[in-house]
Amino acid sequence: MKNMDCFESFLLNALSEDIGIGDITSDAIVPEAHRSEAVFIAEENFILAGIPFAEKIFRLVNPELKFTVSVKDGKPVKKGTVIARISGNTRGLLTGERTALNIVQRLSGIATLTRKFVTSVKGTSVKITDTRKTTPGFRFFEKYAVRAGGGTNHRFGLYDGILIKDNHIRAAGNIRNAVKLARNNSQHMLKIEVEAGSIKEVRESLSSGVDVIMLDNMTLRDIRKAVEIIHGKSPHPLIEVSGGITLDNVRKIAESEVDLISIGALTHSSAAADISMDITELSG
Amino acid sequence: MKNMDCFESFLLNALSEDIGIGDITSDAIVPEAHRSEAVFIAEENFILAGIPFAEKIFRLVNPELKFTVSVKDGKPVKKGTVIARISGNTRGLLTGERTALNIVQRLSGIATLTRKFVTSVKGTSVKITDTRKTTPGFRFFEKYAVRAGGGTNHRFGLYDGILIKDNHIRAAGNIRNAVKLARNNSQHMLKIEVEAGSIKEVRESLSSGVDVIMLDNMTLRDIRKAVEIIHGKSPHPLIEVSGGITLDNVRKIAESEVDLISIGALTHSSAAADISMDITELSG
Amino acid sequence: MKNMDCFESFLLNALSEDIGIGDITSDAIVPEAHRSEAVFIAEENFILAGIPFAEKIFRLVNPELKFTVSVKDGKPVKKGTVIARISGNTRGLLTGERTALNIVQRLSGIATLTRKFVTSVKGTSVKITDTRKTTPGFRFFEKYAVRAGGGTNHRFGLYDGILIKDNHIRAAGNIRNAVKLARNNSQHMLKIEVEAGSIKEVRESLSSGVDVIMLDNMTLRDIRKAVEIIHGKSPHPLIEVSGGITLDNVRKIAESEVDLISIGALTHSSAAADISMDITELSG
Amino acid sequence: MKNMDCFESFLLNALSEDIGIGDITSDAIVPEAHRSEAVFIAEENFILAGIPFAEKIFRLVNPELKFTVSVKDGKPVKKGTVIARISGNTRGLLTGERTALNIVQRLSGIATLTRKFVTSVKGTSVKITDTRKTTPGFRFFEKYAVRAGGGTNHRFGLYDGILIKDNHIRAAGNIRNAVKLARNNSQHMLKIEVEAGSIKEVRESLSSGVDVIMLDNMTLRDIRKAVEIIHGKSPHPLIEVSGGITLDNVRKIAESEVDLISIGALTHSSAAADISMDITELSG
Amino acid sequence: MKNMDCFESFLLNALSEDIGIGDITSDAIVPEAHRSEAVFIAEENFILAGIPFAEKIFRLVNPELKFTVSVKDGKPVKKGTVIARISGNTRGLLTGERTALNIVQRLSGIATLTRKFVTSVKGTSVKITDTRKTTPGFRFFEKYAVRAGGGTNHRFGLYDGILIKDNHIRAAGNIRNAVKLARNNSQHMLKIEVEAGSIKEVRESLSSGVDVIMLDNMTLRDIRKAVEIIHGKSPHPLIEVSGGITLDNVRKIAESEVDLISIGALTHSSAAADISMDITELSG
Amino acid sequence: MKNMDCFESFLLNALSEDIGIGDITSDAIVPEAHRSEAVFIAEENFILAGIPFAEKIFRLVNPELKFTVSVKDGKPVKKGTVIARISGNTRGLLTGERTALNIVQRLSGIATLTRKFVTSVKGTSVKITDTRKTTPGFRFFEKYAVRAGGGTNHRFGLYDGILIKDNHIRAAGNIRNAVKLARNNSQHMLKIEVEAGSIKEVRESLSSGVDVIMLDNMTLRDIRKAVEIIHGKSPHPLIEVSGGITLDNVRKIAESEVDLISIGALTHSSAAADISMDITELSG
Repeated sequence: MKNMDCFESFLLNALSEDIGIGDITSDAIVPEAHRSEAVFIAEENFILAGIPFAEKIFRLVNPELKFTVSVKDGKPVKKGTVIARISGNTRGLLTGERTALNIVQRLSGIATLTRKFVTSVKGTSVKITDTRKTTPGFRFFEKYAVRAGGGTNHRFGLYDGILIKDNHIRAAGNIRNAVKLARNNSQHMLKIEVEAGSIKEVRESLSSGVDVIMLDNMTLRDIRKAVEIIHGKSPHPLIEVSGGITLDNVRKIAESEVDLISIGALTHSSAAADISMDITELSG
Repeated sequence: MKNMDCFESFLLNALSEDIGIGDITSDAIVPEAHRSEAVFIAEENFILAGIPFAEKIFRLVNPELKFTVSVKDGKPVKKGTVIARISGNTRGLLTGERTALNIVQRLSGIATLTRKFVTSVKGTSVKITDTRKTTPGFRFFEKYAVRAGGGTNHRFGLYDGILIKDNHIRAAGNIRNAVKLARNNSQHMLKIEVEAGSIKEVRESLSSGVDVIMLDNMTLRDIRKAVEIIHGKSPHPLIEVSGGITLDNVRKIAESEVDLISIGALTHSSAAADISMDITELSG
Repeated sequence: MKNMDCFESFLLNALSEDIGIGDITSDAIVPEAHRSEAVFIAEENFILAGIPFAEKIFRLVNPELKFTVSVKDGKPVKKGTVIARISGNTRGLLTGERTALNIVQRLSGIATLTRKFVTSVKGTSVKITDTRKTTPGFRFFEKYAVRAGGGTNHRFGLYDGILIKDNHIRAAGNIRNAVKLARNNSQHMLKIEVEAGSIKEVRESLSSGVDVIMLDNMTLRDIRKAVEIIHGKSPHPLIEVSGGITLDNVRKIAESEVDLISIGALTHSSAAADISMDITELSG
Repeated sequence: MKNMDCFESFLLNALSEDIGIGDITSDAIVPEAHRSEAVFIAEENFILAGIPFAEKIFRLVNPELKFTVSVKDGKPVKKGTVIARISGNTRGLLTGERTALNIVQRLSGIATLTRKFVTSVKGTSVKITDTRKTTPGFRFFEKYAVRAGGGTNHRFGLYDGILIKDNHIRAAGNIRNAVKLARNNSQHMLKIEVEAGSIKEVRESLSSGVDVIMLDNMTLRDIRKAVEIIHGKSPHPLIEVSGGITLDNVRKIAESEVDLISIGALTHSSAAADISMDITELSG
Repeated sequence: MKNMDCFESFLLNALSEDIGIGDITSDAIVPEAHRSEAVFIAEENFILAGIPFAEKIFRLVNPELKFTVSVKDGKPVKKGTVIARISGNTRGLLTGERTALNIVQRLSGIATLTRKFVTSVKGTSVKITDTRKTTPGFRFFEKYAVRAGGGTNHRFGLYDGILIKDNHIRAAGNIRNAVKLARNNSQHMLKIEVEAGSIKEVRESLSSGVDVIMLDNMTLRDIRKAVEIIHGKSPHPLIEVSGGITLDNVRKIAESEVDLISIGALTHSSAAADISMDITELSG
Repeated sequence: MKNMDCFESFLLNALSEDIGIGDITSDAIVPEAHRSEAVFIAEENFILAGIPFAEKIFRLVNPELKFTVSVKDGKPVKKGTVIARISGNTRGLLTGERTALNIVQRLSGIATLTRKFVTSVKGTSVKITDTRKTTPGFRFFEKYAVRAGGGTNHRFGLYDGILIKDNHIRAAGNIRNAVKLARNNSQHMLKIEVEAGSIKEVRESLSSGVDVIMLDNMTLRDIRKAVEIIHGKSPHPLIEVSGGITLDNVRKIAESEVDLISIGALTHSSAAADISMDITELSG
C-alpha cells in the first residue's frame, strides 16, 4: 500500500493541468457516444514503468474506459510492441491520452537508464540507488521507476534517514561530535550515514561508529583505499559511492567491493521513452 | 501575474515531499540559532531559469532567510559563477537546499536546450515552441523555462487552442467536417490548427480555412512543398513543423520558411544543469 | 470531458457549506431507514439547465439515491412539469434538496434569459455570447448554462484569448503597438481582439490586423458604420458588439450583420427559475 | 472574526478561475514595472457591499497594490461616486479587476435589494431575513451582503437551527411528534421552528411548544388570523412569514405584527450593481 | 447525513499520516497476493464507539477488504469479545490496522466515560453533555462518541449557539446589555445562554430573558438555591451546571433538578479502550 | 524545520472547526475595536508543551494580536503561574481562546505524563519512547509533546523504520526469512526491529542480525534473561521493552539494562492539563 494522497490527488491534478475547463477539440468534433479502441505502442526499445498509473488516469477521466495491460512494469519492451489496449468512449480516450503517456514515458525513461546501470554491475553485489535529485512534486513516482528498473531507493526525504554532510560537520565542529548529536537527538530506528570526502574523513567516520559511509567524489584509487580501511573493522559500515558515476566507470567502482552506488542522473537527466497511442478501431 | 495556486501550493507541496515530519539531520546537529552564508554556484555552463522560485522556496522554509540573486533568468551562466547568495538561519538553508536546487537545475536544463535550438535558427523568423509533453504537475514551470530559453509556448492544455489530430479527423469523417464542427462548437477566440501528415491533407486543411497547419513528421522535401502550397493562399495560415526535430536538422527546416517548430524534447528529455550550494561562512 | 476538479470538489464543498456538521432536523426526526419518493416540479415556465449536477449532488449525499431525469438540459419546461424523480433514503433526499435546487434554479435562470436573447435574434447569423461577469467560483457552471440556453461562450478567463482594452492600449501607446506586442508575446493559437470605442479606433484595429473587433457601447448608427468599414476588408475580422444590450435593442443590432453580441446580464443579473421538490410517497 | 477558510481560499480560487495560467493580454502588452492609478466608480445608485473583499483580492494578486476605500459597506452610493482608489503595478490592477468587480457588484446588488425591503417596512419592528436559496459555494458572502443591506440572517445551513417542514412532519406522523423528536435528539442551544401552511397547523405548532412558527405562503388574511392566535399565548413564539413576498405586499404583511419576513429573492434573483474600474493615471 | 468532508478527507489524511510513502515492513515481507482473516478483540470491558469509521478506513486502504461488524456502536463490550472480523489482502489488513484501532480505541474511551456519568444520573431527567474541550481537528468524531455513550452534544462550535461568558459581560457592561446585543445581532434560531458565577448573576440573567443559564463552578448549595430562583419563573430557562463535575458528585447535582450537566473530561481526559487486532488465519 | 503543511493548514483547520461561519457571540456583543489584555494561567502543576502553537493560532485569528510567552515548552509550571500574556483586539482574543487552550492543554498533559516516566528512570540510560497509538491527524503534535516531556520518539509512521511483528513473521514463515526479506526489499538507511514474545524468538532475532529487538509483554524475569542473552553478542542490538508499562514497574524494567521503554499511554491515555485564559484588562 502506497501513500493514497499521491495517487488520486496527484493524478487528478495532473489531468486538471492538461484539461482545464475541457478538451475543447474532442468535445467539439467527436460525438458524445462515439467509441473506439486504441493501443499504446512502443516506438523504441525500453524498460516499462508506470503503466498502472496510465490505467488509473483513464479511469479517472471516464470510469467506463477499459484498459488492458500486456506488459508488466519492469519488463523490457521492443520497438513495435503493444503495451496496452484501451477501449471505450472516444472522447475519454483522447482526453486522457497525453497525461497517461507523459507519466509512462517519463517513468520508463528512468527505468531504462536505471537498468543500464544495473546491468553494468551485474555479478557484483552492488546496489544501484537513486538520490533526492527528483522533479519537485513527482518524487514518489520517480523512485517507483527506479525500482522498476532494478535499482533500490535511497532516503525518500529528509525524514527517513540521517545523512551528515560537510555543512553539518562544520556546524558541529567535527565528525565525532556530529555523529554523537545525531545519535542522541533522533529516533533510534534510523541509520546514520556520513559523507566523507577524504581518507581522513573516512577514518573519522569509522571511529565515530556510523552505519554507512558515503565516499563522495573520490578517485577510484581512493575508493579502493577507503574500502580497505573500512573493511578492516568488523562489523563494518555499509559503503556508498556517490558523484561522477557514468556507464563508463560504474563497473570498475562496483568491483571495488562497495555496497551502494548512488546516481542523481537516474532521475534528473534521463530521456523519456517514446510511446504513442494509436486508435485502431472506430465504432461511432 | 501568473496562476497563484501554482506558486504557493505547488512549492509548499514540493517542500513537504522532501521534509516530511522534519529535516532530522539538521535539527539534530545544527543549533537552532546557528547562522550561515551560502552561494549557489554553477558547476557547468548553462542558461539560468527558475531562480525566483528558489527564492520563494527559501522564504517558505524560513521567512527571514535573505536570498540575493546575481543573475537573471534567461541569462547564460559560466561554470564557477555565483548565481545567488543566501544568508540566515543555517537549518533553514540546509532544509530548503535540495528542493530549491531541484527546481532551478531542471528549469535551467530546459532553458539551456531551448536556447541551443533558438540559436540554431537565428536569423530566420522561426519560433521554437514547446509541446504538452511535460512532467505531470510541473507543466507551468517547464513552459516558463522554455520562455526563459528564448522559446515560445504552444497550448498550455486541451483548453486554450483547438488542435485537430488524425483521430479527430477520422471521427468526423474528413478534415472539412472536423474544422466545421470545431468552428461551430467552440468559443470564437481560439484558433484552429490541423495536423497534416501528407500533402493531400495540407491541401484539405488549406481549403477548410484553418488558422494553423502542422506538418507532422514530414520529410524536408515535403515540408518545402507544403510551404509552397500554403503560401499560395493569401492570407495564409501559420505553418508549424513537428516530429523528429534535432539540433542537426532544425536549421534546414527553419530555412524552409515555416513559422513554428515544436519540439517535445525541450521538456521531456533535457538534462538538469549542475548547480551546487556551498556554505561560505558560519556564524554559529 | 470537463475539468474534474470543478465537479466533485465544487459540489462537495457546496454540500458541506449547507450541511456543516449535519442536517440536524432530518437526523432528529426522520428514522434512519425511512424511504420516500419525490419529484422536482417546475413552478413556472423556463429553460432547464443543470439537472445532471443535481443528480451528482444526490449521489454524493447518498450513493443509493436514484435520480431519474425526465427533461434534458436546454429544453423548455412548462409550469407543473415533473423534471426529475428521486427515490431512496428520506434523510438523503431532504439533506440534498436545497443544494441541488439552488444549482438547477440558478442555471435554469441563466439558460432562460439566454434563450430569450437567442430567440430575439433568430434568423440572423449572430451568436449570443457571455462575458467574464460571473459569480466568483461558479463560472464554469454559469457558462455551461449559457450554452444550454443556446448561447456560446466567450473567453473562460484571462488565459484563453487576448482581449485588448482601452487601458492596455494606453499602456502600449496605441492600438498598433498593443497588437504587435500581443502577437509577439503570446502563444500562436489565441486570437487577438481589440475593444474599439469609436470609428477611429475601429479603423486602427482593422489596419493592425486583429482577429476580432469589439464595438464597445456604440450607438446603432456607429455600429452600422463600423460594420461597413470592417466588411470592406477581405477577409475581415469578426465583429462583436458589447454594452447596453437589452431584449428591446438586440434584434436591431443583430440585423446590422455583426457576428457576436456579448451580454453580461446573462450571468450577472438573471433571476433564478422556480422549482420545488415534493415528496410524493413515504415508505418509512 | 469570520471563517478564515472562506476568505483566503475562496478568493484565491476565484482569482485562479479567472487567471488560469496567466493574464496573457496584460503580460504581453504592459511592461512589468508599469504603474497606474485607478478608481472604482458607481455607474448607478446602489447600496455598497463587499468592498473589503475587493481590497483583499488586489492584495492577493500583488501585495504592493494600494487600495483606499472611500465608502463603507452598507452605505448608499450615488451614480458617479468614486468608491475606491487603487494604485500600483498596472498588470496587477488589470489582473485583479474583473474578480474584484464581480464580487462587489454581486454583493452590492443583494444589499440594494435588501435595503429596498428594509426601507419598505421602516417603522415596524419586522426584520427582513434571507434564506438558504444562495449561490452554491458563495453563501457566506451573500449573507454578508444581506446584513450590509440592513437585513438579518436566517440559518446559515442545516446545522444551526431546526426547521421542521411538511416532509419532516409527514415522516414523523404529526407536528407534535416531530417537535418532540427534534427536542430530544438535538443540542439544547438551537431553537425549533415549524413551517405551518394552515391555521390548523399553526394551532398544532403552538400547542407543541415551538420557538418559531413560519407562516408559509399564507394569504394576508390568514397571516392576521395566525398572528392573533399566536399572540394569544404568553410568551408566544416568534412569527416568520415566508413565500410570495414582493416590494408591493411586504409593508402590509409587516404591519400585521409578525416578527420576521424571509425573502429568497434577496439572494437568488437580485441584479448586480453596475461598477467600473477606470485607470486615471499612467506612470509607466 | 453528516459532513462529508470530515469523513473521507479526515480519514484519508489520518491514513496518510501513518503510511507516508508506504508500509515498508509489510511491503517488504508479505507477498502482494497474500490473504488473511483477522479479528478486533476487546482487551477489557468498554462501550464501543467508532466501528463504522474503522470499516471505512480499511475500505480506503483496499476496497476489497471485507469488514464484518459484530457489535454496534453504543453497546457494552466484555473483555474477549470479537468486535469485528476483517478478511482479505494481508498487506491491506496490516497497513490499516493502527489507524483503525486508534480511532476506535479513542472513541470507545470517550463513550465509556460518558456512559459512566449517564449511568450515575439514571432516573433523573438530567442530560450529560460535552463541551468544546476537544482534540483539535477531531471534534466531530469525539462528539459522535459522546452520543454513542448516551450523552448529548452541546454547541459544535462558536457558530451554533450563543454562550455569553464573563468576558463578554465585562465588554458589554452588564448581563442585561450583553443579552440585548446578542438578541439584536444574531440570527433568531439560536438560543442565548449566560454563564452565571453567582446567585446575583443568576438573577440578572433571569430578568434578561435568556434561554439557558449555566451555573459555573457553583457549590451544590448555590446550585440548589439557583434552581429554586429560576424555577420561580414560568416558563423558566434551562439550567446547565458546569465545572468540577466528577463521578462522585454528579448524582447529587443531578438530583437538584437541573437540566444539563456539561463535562469537559469526557473528551479531554478519557483513556483509550484497549483493543487488538489478531490475524486468525493465513491463506497466503 | 518541521513539516509546513502540519502547521499552517492543521491549525487553520482546527480554527475553522471551532469558528465555522463566525464567533457569533463575540461578534454580537463585543465592539469591533475593543481591546484587552489576557493571561494564560496554570490551574494545576504540569509540564508545559505547545505554547508556540497557541501563539500561531492567535496570529492566524488576527495578525495584530501580541502573544508573549513567559515559560518555555518542557519546563515545569506551578499552579497559578502566568504562562503567557495576550493583548490586542478583544474579539480575536475570545475567538482564538478555546482552540489555543485545547492544543496547549492536551500537549501539556502528554508532556506531564512523559516527564513522570522519565523521572522514574532517572540515573539509568533508558530512553522513554512513544508509539504510533496517537490521535488520528494529530500525531505530529503529540510526538512533539513527548519530546517536550523528555521522552524520545519512536517511528513517526509505517515509513521511517522497519518493525517486524508476529503477523509479518507468520507470513514470512520464520524470523530469519522475514528479516532477510526486509533487508533486501527496503532502503538501506532504515534499521530493522523485531518484536519478540519469547526467549526463543529473542534468540532467533539475534541470530538474524537485527538492529533492535523489542521484548513484547514479557515478565521482568524474561526481560532480564533476554538482556543477558542479547548482551552476549558484540556489538549487540538495541533492546526495547513494550507492553504493560506503568509508573510502578518502569524503574525495575529500566534497571534491567534495556535501552528503550515504549509506552502507548503517553499519547492515548494522558489527561489534559488545566489552563484558563483570564482577561485582565479591558480597554474598550
